Amino acid sequence: MERIRLGMVGGGSGAFIGEVHRVASRIDGHFDLVAGALSSTPEKARQSATALGLDPSRSYGSYDEMAEAEAAREDGIEAVSIVTPNHVHFPAAKAFLDRGIHVICDKPLTSTFEDAEAMEKAVASSSALFVLTHNYTGYPMVRQAREMLAEGRIGTIRIVQVEYPQDWLTDAVETEGSKQAEWRTDPARSGAGGAIGDIGTHAYNLASFVTGLTGAELAADLHSFGAGRQLDDNAHVMLRYEGGARGMLWCSQVAPGNENGLRLRVLGDKGGIEWAQETPNEMWFTPHGEATRRITRMGAGATDGANAVSRIPPGHPEGYFEAFANIYTEAAHAIRAVQDGEARDAVMGRLPGIAAGLEGMAFIRACVTSAKSNSVWVKI
Amino acid sequence: MERIRLGMVGGGSGAFIGEVHRVASRIDGHFDLVAGALSSTPEKARQSATALGLDPSRSYGSYDEMAEAEAAREDGIEAVSIVTPNHVHFPAAKAFLDRGIHVICDKPLTSTFEDAEAMEKAVASSSALFVLTHNYTGYPMVRQAREMLAEGRIGTIRIVQVEYPQDWLTDAVETEGSKQAEWRTDPARSGAGGAIGDIGTHAYNLASFVTGLTGAELAADLHSFGAGRQLDDNAHVMLRYEGGARGMLWCSQVAPGNENGLRLRVLGDKGGIEWAQETPNEMWFTPHGEATRRITRMGAGATDGANAVSRIPPGHPEGYFEAFANIYTEAAHAIRAVQDGEARDAVMGRLPGIAAGLEGMAFIRACVTSAKSNSVWVKI
Amino acid sequence: MERIRLGMVGGGSGAFIGEVHRVASRIDGHFDLVAGALSSTPEKARQSATALGLDPSRSYGSYDEMAEAEAAREDGIEAVSIVTPNHVHFPAAKAFLDRGIHVICDKPLTSTFEDAEAMEKAVASSSALFVLTHNYTGYPMVRQAREMLAEGRIGTIRIVQVEYPQDWLTDAVETEGSKQAEWRTDPARSGAGGAIGDIGTHAYNLASFVTGLTGAELAADLHSFGAGRQLDDNAHVMLRYEGGARGMLWCSQVAPGNENGLRLRVLGDKGGIEWAQETPNEMWFTPHGEATRRITRMGAGATDGANAVSRIPPGHPEGYFEAFANIYTEAAHAIRAVQDGEARDAVMGRLPGIAAGLEGMAFIRACVTSAKSNSVWVKI
Amino acid sequence: MERIRLGMVGGGSGAFIGEVHRVASRIDGHFDLVAGALSSTPEKARQSATALGLDPSRSYGSYDEMAEAEAAREDGIEAVSIVTPNHVHFPAAKAFLDRGIHVICDKPLTSTFEDAEAMEKAVASSSALFVLTHNYTGYPMVRQAREMLAEGRIGTIRIVQVEYPQDWLTDAVETEGSKQAEWRTDPARSGAGGAIGDIGTHAYNLASFVTGLTGAELAADLHSFGAGRQLDDNAHVMLRYEGGARGMLWCSQVAPGNENGLRLRVLGDKGGIEWAQETPNEMWFTPHGEATRRITRMGAGATDGANAVSRIPPGHPEGYFEAFANIYTEAAHAIRAVQDGEARDAVMGRLPGIAAGLEGMAFIRACVTSAKSNSVWVKI
Repeated sequence: MERIRLGMVGGGSGAFIGEVHRVASRIDGHFDLVAGALSSTPEKARQSATALGLDPSRSYGSYDEMAEAEAAREDGIEAVSIVTPNHVHFPAAKAFLDRGIHVICDKPLTSTFEDAEAMEKAVASSSALFVLTHNYTGYPMVRQAREMLAEGRIGTIRIVQVEYPQDWLTDAVETEGSKQAEWRTDPARSGAGGAIGDIGTHAYNLASFVTGLTGAELAADLHSFGAGRQLDDNAHVMLRYEGGARGMLWCSQVAPGNENGLRLRVLGDKGGIEWAQETPNEMWFTPHGEATRRITRMGAGATDGANAVSRIPPGHPEGYFEAFANIYTEAAHAIRAVQDGEARDAVMGRLPGIAAGLEGMAFIRACVTSAKSNSVWVKI
Repeated sequence: MERIRLGMVGGGSGAFIGEVHRVASRIDGHFDLVAGALSSTPEKARQSATALGLDPSRSYGSYDEMAEAEAAREDGIEAVSIVTPNHVHFPAAKAFLDRGIHVICDKPLTSTFEDAEAMEKAVASSSALFVLTHNYTGYPMVRQAREMLAEGRIGTIRIVQVEYPQDWLTDAVETEGSKQAEWRTDPARSGAGGAIGDIGTHAYNLASFVTGLTGAELAADLHSFGAGRQLDDNAHVMLRYEGGARGMLWCSQVAPGNENGLRLRVLGDKGGIEWAQETPNEMWFTPHGEATRRITRMGAGATDGANAVSRIPPGHPEGYFEAFANIYTEAAHAIRAVQDGEARDAVMGRLPGIAAGLEGMAFIRACVTSAKSNSVWVKI
Repeated sequence: MERIRLGMVGGGSGAFIGEVHRVASRIDGHFDLVAGALSSTPEKARQSATALGLDPSRSYGSYDEMAEAEAAREDGIEAVSIVTPNHVHFPAAKAFLDRGIHVICDKPLTSTFEDAEAMEKAVASSSALFVLTHNYTGYPMVRQAREMLAEGRIGTIRIVQVEYPQDWLTDAVETEGSKQAEWRTDPARSGAGGAIGDIGTHAYNLASFVTGLTGAELAADLHSFGAGRQLDDNAHVMLRYEGGARGMLWCSQVAPGNENGLRLRVLGDKGGIEWAQETPNEMWFTPHGEATRRITRMGAGATDGANAVSRIPPGHPEGYFEAFANIYTEAAHAIRAVQDGEARDAVMGRLPGIAAGLEGMAFIRACVTSAKSNSVWVKI
Repeated sequence: MERIRLGMVGGGSGAFIGEVHRVASRIDGHFDLVAGALSSTPEKARQSATALGLDPSRSYGSYDEMAEAEAAREDGIEAVSIVTPNHVHFPAAKAFLDRGIHVICDKPLTSTFEDAEAMEKAVASSSALFVLTHNYTGYPMVRQAREMLAEGRIGTIRIVQVEYPQDWLTDAVETEGSKQAEWRTDPARSGAGGAIGDIGTHAYNLASFVTGLTGAELAADLHSFGAGRQLDDNAHVMLRYEGGARGMLWCSQVAPGNENGLRLRVLGDKGGIEWAQETPNEMWFTPHGEATRRITRMGAGATDGANAVSRIPPGHPEGYFEAFANIYTEAAHAIRAVQDGEARDAVMGRLPGIAAGLEGMAFIRACVTSAKSNSVWVKI
């Protein structure tokens, strides 16, 4: 099978998420990275392209230049990964969507709600696919949880507890040279949400993905503990879902001892489940009144949907990269299906797209609005 | 050493917490149970007394009768344990306090705030000690956590996450003959708080005990999921502490797969700690920027205060009863000190008393008030 | 119900296991400690007796004196706990057995095989009960495991993996004033086995108790790592059981990071189970081809035998003392049954007695014999 | 950077380990799979090649054909992965070694000791590199453990406990159509060791890699529990290392509830460490007399050697594929170094090669020899 020709915007040397996207794109062998606008600094863009073995003629100085040039090539890129700070997501994505090039974009969707709405229009008027890398939905046991809940295995959902603590912003590292920290704590590049935008959206998305519930309203208390920090680095949110379920979301980047502690618990009237990102190959399932089960990836009781995104037998841990690769591989299948003439709306399957992106932006906006009004309940 | 003569109100056969108090009172050999008003049903009171080997003449039909009779005896009880439903706490305690008999009372303090204030007066005008069995504060590693935080081991406290999920009220067992469930879901006997009163107070008390922080205000979303249930069985609470720390408290009795999941995490600007009641012999300590440590009861790094309430070397699990017994043993020491002439205020040490009880009642009241006003922030 | 009058040999201040026996005897309220020969040092015996509130006239200078005096009293002790170093077990137990006083004796049975055989005779010619405190068999989840295996829940047993690592003898603390370490590393007081006698016997007993299997032969590699240490502080043993099951036993007292790590895994042709002493309220059960279950004390799926030795609902951890108390409580029931005229052989139930003691001694002897012959297989 | 042209022998559709090698070779982008002799069944070889997108002209019917043809091409493969059943390892490897093509070979080295010695000669007379995929040595925390032990962080090593239980051969699945089980239980294709060859060698290699110790002698009890099975499916081994350390190794493929439970504990006179393959991103370190630390991949306290084979920050789990990819990536670096003129012996670094392969074969032989003589100690 021919590999899909891929370009990348952002992700020059020193970036974290760019390399993650590249590894994810390689794991199952569906993509070849052939072009890039890897940095807004020309010298860095060139060096990064060389290190990655790109043809120098396909290392571009800007996403606009790249979009134009690649669209004109017979063998131009078929898809592009956008892995820049948030404020670049929209203009970069638009440049490719407008030329019918498929877009795989990091989250959150954009830095502002206006951009988000503009992105929605750009997707609507394009023939290309738009995939948002809510990568945690790619974990097999997350798929498992979603399927089990859809089958009613825990009955009617009552309570959703989701949290995502980290500790890397405990000190004011944005003032000490951390590039990662710099743009994430800068409203101009991140948007109105700090931790809530960076990881809170992941948590909210994960809960929605697994439960199938729609958030109705929320009450949020956002806070910045880091000295001189403008954006929230800790967020407490109470949630009410349509249909009556209640929830709580905590995300923090100032929680020492927590590395990447995304964790979801869902409780229903017939049982409960629990999953944690740092031990992703297992989930815990309690049918009410019975002993708790440890269900493992590809182990006994694994669902078809979980097995479909697994590669090796239980006990051989798959991790963050494989979950991320599942998004890329499903994107590859969707791209090929569209290229084979299927309707764009029919090929997305489990892939998060523009709708998930807008939900995330609505979540951020509601959190910020609520927090500004002393935690009043706000419609999402 | 002579044992302290103890009486008990409530705790007849079939009760849960009465037997816990009895075992706790025996473990370290400081008390002899010699009298009781074990049930409001005379037949049951008699049978329970017999089963416990009490002298039949000291099995009473009511706490009033018992208080009067025992106060008149040369060898009358020196202390009494009150283990009834909440609404009986105050009148029973008063009967003994008024006669100078020391009271060890289960939590929450009372069923109403009016009773709580009356209890405060009764304690103030008595010469006797009043101990409230916030038993989780008796765990060695809880003492350890308190000491470490007081020493500044995690720096300035920023975030407090505390939760207490259970699952025993997932079904409406109060309609199926569970006596425990019956009174706990009945406002007349429990008060205005359901789960928030029964276990939320434990969670709030634990957080206060360990951090030394004072709650300033809270925003609560209380809910009843059980069919026909009048009191909350699930509570989500956002907390603000004096000095700026923020917190979240979740308690639930409808969370399948959770048995008695009291768990506390405290994060500061220099580190974090974590402790869970179901694995009480260990706590986790992360000095920010260093590897997380597993500190064990009486193990390396255990503090004096933790060792003082431990009995055996690490690896030999002490549990719920031993923690409860620590409260009884400290009560015994306090009683003997008072009997030896020390001032009542000087002997309480780490023991929870009337102040902790009032804080718990204020917490319940604030939660109920906030919830009725759609989660507005309310002073505690 | 009248309490049983109990005496104690050994267990003066500073001893570890004596206080454990005392707490265990108090927890369920079946015993009153009324007499003691608490130390071979008269001054220490006296002080310890005072601290425990014993009548000074019943604090004796030797077990012989105590046995004679108590047997002569109308209200003399009905049972005695023997908690001395191993070499005293036999002569002390004999003094009471010969007078019809029930004996509760710490393990291992004796320090030498000759004493063990003499003990067997002393028990045979006495009317009294002999209980050996293999306390780990008192854990509810150990009873659970035994019952599940007896019911065939894991099919035919194939493999038994048991281990018991500790770390307290990593350094040569016996030369630095540790009394506990001194006698345990002294062949004259401990016998021919070091770690293998002190904790290996617990591990071997636990495996036998849970599986119901009889050890056929073993091959052992014993070693002393501690400088100048005469007895083994680490033992590796391969096991063959009657019927074809194979096993491995590791015990060590020089394993840093291990506190009291007794752990058992049993694998059959239809499933497997696992239990660890440091987290005693849960066991893991895997029916082959299904997800692993976490079965909790008094939780869903708990067996009658496990519930019979439990006191409180799941999630409230019971620990080492409660398991030990279960042995005492069952001993109390057995003593009362015998006093009520039941046959001695009919009342022991799950209690370990002389047979378990002899098996332990045979195990130690086989280990030592095998090790001396470079790990040749030796019949147990 | 140009990718290295890679071929593959074995690994047709339905094979487990072939796909693992392919993913591993892609993750870091150092290899391009361009040729294959993917199956001994021509039709299957063709189909597998098509599925992988290989040029049909480079899908060969045998490794001999492939070696000859590729060696003759200007753009022929530079390296080959051998992922067949064990008995094919030697003849296949030889075909490429003799032509100077680098070999990456699955373990164990060969099916017979004669083949192993012949392999050693073939490697010696070749200019090509020989890498054996003892993939578990590629885990960052395994490197961490090795470095910490080499630095003396646990002092002198005393005890090595290693185990590797699985459960997939609990039933006689080799008679029910499992291809994986068929050849692994067939002496003609696997060699004289069953579980001991398949996974025991991994366990033994891991222990040697981490400790740096050399095995001196062993005593083994091998057993087949599966009905009609010729090779061992469970092995108990006692180990003595040069210098005096003692060890135990257990491997099993009939242990229900165990998926891929490779686990290593090493105890020294100054501390201990523990690592388990199913939770590979953490290791446990206890400096004797201090609290146990949880050290995480790229977290605080991670060593340079561990970080060198890590890709993303702590809390983002890397897994089995990434560890396997580390072997491939180090092989790529070694291949390029040799191509750049460095001496073959100077480029292997941490990579397992022919020496590790021979040690594994010596281990299998010693186990089989000991077991046949009723577990007598045998030199390794």
